[in-house]
Amino acid sequence: MPDQPRVEFRTAPERYRHWRLATEGPIATLTMDVDEQGGIVSGYELKLNSYDLGVDIELYDAVQRLRFEHPEVRTVVITSGKPKIFCAGANIRMLAASPHGWKVNFCKFTNETRNGIEDATAHSGQTYLAAVNGTASGGGYELALACEHIMLIDDRSSAVSLPELPLLGVLPGTGGLTRVSDKRHVRRDLADYFSTRAEGIGGKKAVQWRLVDEAVPRPRWDETVAERAAELAARSGRPQDAEGVALTEVSKTRDDDAITYDHIEAKLDRDTGKVDISVKGPQNDPPASIAEAEARSAEFWPLAVTRELDDLILDLRTNETELGTWVFRTQGDPAKVLAYDELLLNSKDNWFANEVLHYLKRTLRRLDVTSRSLIAVIEPGSCFAGSLLELALAADRSFQLAGVFEDKNPDAEPATITLGDMNLGPLTMSNGLTRLQTRFWGDEAGYEAAAKRKNEALEAEDAADLGLITFAPDDIDWDEEIRIATEERASFSPDALTGLEANYRFAGPETMETKIFGRLSAWQNWIFNRPNAAGPDGALRRFGTGQRAVFDRKRV
Amino acid sequence: MPDQPRVEFRTAPERYRHWRLATEGPIATLTMDVDEQGGIVSGYELKLNSYDLGVDIELYDAVQRLRFEHPEVRTVVITSGKPKIFCAGANIRMLAASPHGWKVNFCKFTNETRNGIEDATAHSGQTYLAAVNGTASGGGYELALACEHIMLIDDRSSAVSLPELPLLGVLPGTGGLTRVSDKRHVRRDLADYFSTRAEGIGGKKAVQWRLVDEAVPRPRWDETVAERAAELAARSGRPQDAEGVALTEVSKTRDDDAITYDHIEAKLDRDTGKVDISVKGPQNDPPASIAEAEARSAEFWPLAVTRELDDLILDLRTNETELGTWVFRTQGDPAKVLAYDELLLNSKDNWFANEVLHYLKRTLRRLDVTSRSLIAVIEPGSCFAGSLLELALAADRSFQLAGVFEDKNPDAEPATITLGDMNLGPLTMSNGLTRLQTRFWGDEAGYEAAAKRKNEALEAEDAADLGLITFAPDDIDWDEEIRIATEERASFSPDALTGLEANYRFAGPETMETKIFGRLSAWQNWIFNRPNAAGPDGALRRFGTGQRAVFDRKRV
Repeated sequence: MPDQPRVEFRTAPERYRHWRLATEGPIATLTMDVDEQGGIVSGYELKLNSYDLGVDIELYDAVQRLRFEHPEVRTVVITSGKPKIFCAGANIRMLAASPHGWKVNFCKFTNETRNGIEDATAHSGQTYLAAVNGTASGGGYELALACEHIMLIDDRSSAVSLPELPLLGVLPGTGGLTRVSDKRHVRRDLADYFSTRAEGIGGKKAVQWRLVDEAVPRPRWDETVAERAAELAARSGRPQDAEGVALTEVSKTRDDDAITYDHIEAKLDRDTGKVDISVKGPQNDPPASIAEAEARSAEFWPLAVTRELDDLILDLRTNETELGTWVFRTQGDPAKVLAYDELLLNSKDNWFANEVLHYLKRTLRRLDVTSRSLIAVIEPGSCFAGSLLELALAADRSFQLAGVFEDKNPDAEPATITLGDMNLGPLTMSNGLTRLQTRFWGDEAGYEAAAKRKNEALEAEDAADLGLITFAPDDIDWDEEIRIATEERASFSPDALTGLEANYRFAGPETMETKIFGRLSAWQNWIFNRPNAAGPDGALRRFGTGQRAVFDRKRV
Repeated sequence: MPDQPRVEFRTAPERYRHWRLATEGPIATLTMDVDEQGGIVSGYELKLNSYDLGVDIELYDAVQRLRFEHPEVRTVVITSGKPKIFCAGANIRMLAASPHGWKVNFCKFTNETRNGIEDATAHSGQTYLAAVNGTASGGGYELALACEHIMLIDDRSSAVSLPELPLLGVLPGTGGLTRVSDKRHVRRDLADYFSTRAEGIGGKKAVQWRLVDEAVPRPRWDETVAERAAELAARSGRPQDAEGVALTEVSKTRDDDAITYDHIEAKLDRDTGKVDISVKGPQNDPPASIAEAEARSAEFWPLAVTRELDDLILDLRTNETELGTWVFRTQGDPAKVLAYDELLLNSKDNWFANEVLHYLKRTLRRLDVTSRSLIAVIEPGSCFAGSLLELALAADRSFQLAGVFEDKNPDAEPATITLGDMNLGPLTMSNGLTRLQTRFWGDEAGYEAAAKRKNEALEAEDAADLGLITFAPDDIDWDEEIRIATEERASFSPDALTGLEANYRFAGPETMETKIFGRLSAWQNWIFNRPNAAGPDGALRRFGTGQRAVFDRKRV
């Protein structure tokens, strides 16, 4: 694949080429109808409802909009607009032609979107129903697996399958194995057999083996899907009469050296391989009530800044792979950040506050699984408090200035950080713990000592003693220490850093989500990189050529 | 590295070249004093107490013998016989010159031995104490991390370190990252810093950061080590007056086509890439008491067969990488197997029974993490009952003949399997569950239904209905089905199979051990395989040449 054009993640339903989003009262239908000629890069056709990053960007957009713009929607039916095929998964020619990094980043994003579908089901009262009206193979079945309920049309030809291993010599890359065993509880030997059978399994056996929830004959299909959708909708706690909040386009300017939004500015430093990211706190006090916040819609600071952060992460991850270190700074009034946090946390029963909180949670999780070194730099004038303190807690290392910059501004208030309620519960990582709990995993006393200081502005020495930051250099050492940290980072093997960070960021318990990102993805990355898959005679490259792959038979 | 000579895992203290094993009452001392010229393959010198597979084979042997031959030993002190250096970890020149598969297999075995050290501490009353009397870097520190208590000499030069990332562009390969975060609870940002600092951390800071348990000045070193060893010994429940059981050499004949032991026979089929393994059940009834069993020492059937299985797994894994499928059969009287199991389970308080049980547990875990497809074939005359049924439960798929072979032996008793108490508790996998619990993860009712049939000989149809086997073909389909299953397996990408099996074998909860094998190992495998480490300009290959590595800076 030649140099890719810069990928843009912002889109809107009127620009979709591959999906149709329709709502009718509490039921939304997301119809996948991929435009074969609409690949995000050239060189392949998206046959059989197969997808590439461009198709998945639209799906992600739709899933987001359903939560914010459609409070009335309680069930989302995912189905296909093509006859006999639900979805053939990721496009193989695209995968075969893509460089290793593109494949891995693509899988990560699709994984996040599927986790987002489960998040909507679990936390938003929007339950996803897979109406598999034709064969679902590979990533197509994995998309269904992310849904709460899977219906398969029973027509003697439609089946679900994970043909990656037998046909392509790779693994399902979007959580398939983990969801088959840990979500649907398919028995391990049946799962093994299923995953080696390219043609898949349909009908009653698919139900019996728990691969799907029901197999429905064609004559009763539409009626049964509607019935099931209504049943799922009836269980929802979504509001009766709320107005949606329009996700107007995030305003952004982008060139080779900078990405600038209303609240976030990123400077791209190609010489040192880093990005300096500065996040502005709110300028004003929060609205007096959540109703007023809702009225501000996409301008409401927590939503606006989260959308910008989300877009920035995706843009940098995809378009700037050589910038290996992201340095986070904040700027503003910590009290105002905490005031916004308080408004949200006091309004948890409000659907909009709930959506904003979970969106922030998901976006910070996106940061956790980003394969870049994250460094937080805490200086006078910053506002690392509550929700914005999560950026420092997500970082691999943090530096807080002890005292002030004597030369530049001797009268400034020293830099502080402030723990708030936002750090003590709602913003869980994918391991199910908060970043603070993960930080103090196995150190209950350390956790308690830190949590007790909630709402207190902590200067560097205190923050260091409490274990909330890594280093607290003073004015004299400051520039040098930060320079060394970032330069050193740029000198290490990018691959080893990725592996190190993927291990240290997730201490403690594992969940399906950490298994998908930690275990399954790591194995898939390895396999993607092996000659048996990606070499000139490998299965991925030979697929569709009529030639069989040549394998080195050594087991590793 | 040229074709390796066949590796042999059987050894004994009198043949050690790298370790000294000394016992004095309840304290054993294992002194690492590596013979520089004693590499298991040629081409490198084992400087600075660095190790290769040969060094670790001796360590494994010592750890095993301590449990069986030394019931009196309650503390094992691991220390170095070289001045100023404890252990420099895996030999870099060996790693740089090794093919990918050798590196991965070597790391797996060293991991298993370190898990075995923790198993001795947890279950055998033999607590390991790392007396780090010089610098411990990389695998050297990881060896210390496997010990319950880490003492570091405080002499201003000795330190512990994980220099893999900064020096070699890889990750610590023997559980280092996982143990630092999940066992020792080093805070994630400190762990990140530590793992990028090639020179490591010593003295008080190492204690403060929890990297070691105490730093002891040289003048008080010997006395403090002795004191700590005695304290740990005092906590042990090892017996006062038991005699050890000598682990006499396992008898084995080995050629290109077969490996034959007293109770196990393996036929190596290079054309089809499989190994047919046949395990014989006990010929006679078990001894009347555990005391009599102890008197039989290494001849006691459960111990003898476990030792053979252990050696066979290691031999095949290391020497026969192209034989990708292992087919297990058993032969004998199920009632006798169950009788032996009963003797062991009724004698759990006996130290010898305890050792045999945990050894069987560890050996089956070795099978679980083996990167080969495992198939169990259950025919008339077999004895898949209790402990031997675990072989079928560990398999990726199992086949049980429905009925008998009408042509060959129409009057035979049909094949059966029998669940026993041995399947319901003691033989946990590394995820902390039994193989039966893992099989029915998320299916409580299925588990209960199966467990209720304990001690009942189940023919194929029953076993299939209960979900205890995968397929139950009859006489007519038998040969064909098994042939297809093994041939098909041989046609798939060996890498993809390895990844698939590593995911499906471990449903449910994760432990430090599954994290090490599933998450950390997968990342390490990926990194080992990347040009940034293993390419001609990669860090691993360039180490020690005076040239810096050249990295592709793209983050993946």
